Amino acid sequence: MSRLVYAEDYETGSVHDLGSHKVTAEEITAFGRTYDPQPYHLDENAGKESAFGGLIASGWNTAAIWMRLYVTTLLPDAAAEGTVEGSPGVDEVRFLHPVRPGDVLHGTAEILGSLPSLSAPEFRIVRNRGHLVNAGGTQVLTLVLNARFRSRPKDS
Amino acid sequence: MSRLVYAEDYETGSVHDLGSHKVTAEEITAFGRTYDPQPYHLDENAGKESAFGGLIASGWNTAAIWMRLYVTTLLPDAAAEGTVEGSPGVDEVRFLHPVRPGDVLHGTAEILGSLPSLSAPEFRIVRNRGHLVNAGGTQVLTLVLNARFRSRPKDS
Repeated sequence: MSRLVYAEDYETGSVHDLGSHKVTAEEITAFGRTYDPQPYHLDENAGKESAFGGLIASGWNTAAIWMRLYVTTLLPDAAAEGTVEGSPGVDEVRFLHPVRPGDVLHGTAEILGSLPSLSAPEFRIVRNRGHLVNAGGTQVLTLVLNARFRSRPKDS
Repeated sequence: MSRLVYAEDYETGSVHDLGSHKVTAEEITAFGRTYDPQPYHLDENAGKESAFGGLIASGWNTAAIWMRLYVTTLLPDAAAEGTVEGSPGVDEVRFLHPVRPGDVLHGTAEILGSLPSLSAPEFRIVRNRGHLVNAGGTQVLTLVLNARFRSRPKDS
């Protein structure tokens, strides 16, 4: 993959491989205790008594796992830049299937397109459709991340 | 506040106080290392060199803080129930202002309305607009959480 540095390098329709992450019971319960203390995110036995039939990851934990894969794979070379005026955020986060201990989640980012930033003409908002799929091929998460990248300078 | 047990108890337009949470540098960097390792989520000095001028929380960390306040305040009495067929998820997550160490964030949940579940007639999807505001009165986060609650049984 060539280096993705400016907004224009993210070609609409391209799909970027973000690699994989193996989920553990320890990760699920640590996140659950801190951010989403519902019984089925805390304890295997409580999970067994729920509709899920066991311990499952918080949806926020699953979304954050996608973010880690995205940041570590795509962002090191990129001109993603935050602003104190706020970030364009995330849309349509969907938790499609339970994530359980031992699941290996594979991530991708599909470039939906980009829009000029309304607040700063030297930036564009790149819309990424994120996916996480488990080893059985079942989609567990989709989301749309709006990321702010610098446009390629006219003299480069 | 009376006990909120069934979908019908969440009155459209009502606003529920979720209490407050004080953010620490340790929380910001722990979340950043694990889920969003961009320099300004990891280290005060790296933050100083960024547009943010210091360490700031990952937007996912801020959203998860809202979730913790929501779960611990509103859900203990509620009939929120997950399903292995997936969760209706989250929309319109907006990171409006940087969250820094020492910020005290106050949460609310505003009930936007509810819709019948398409997959299970005994459930409704309650749409909540979540807000987090810092001690200076600045909104730092908004989101829309779609939560699945059991409808009040006809005989109760």
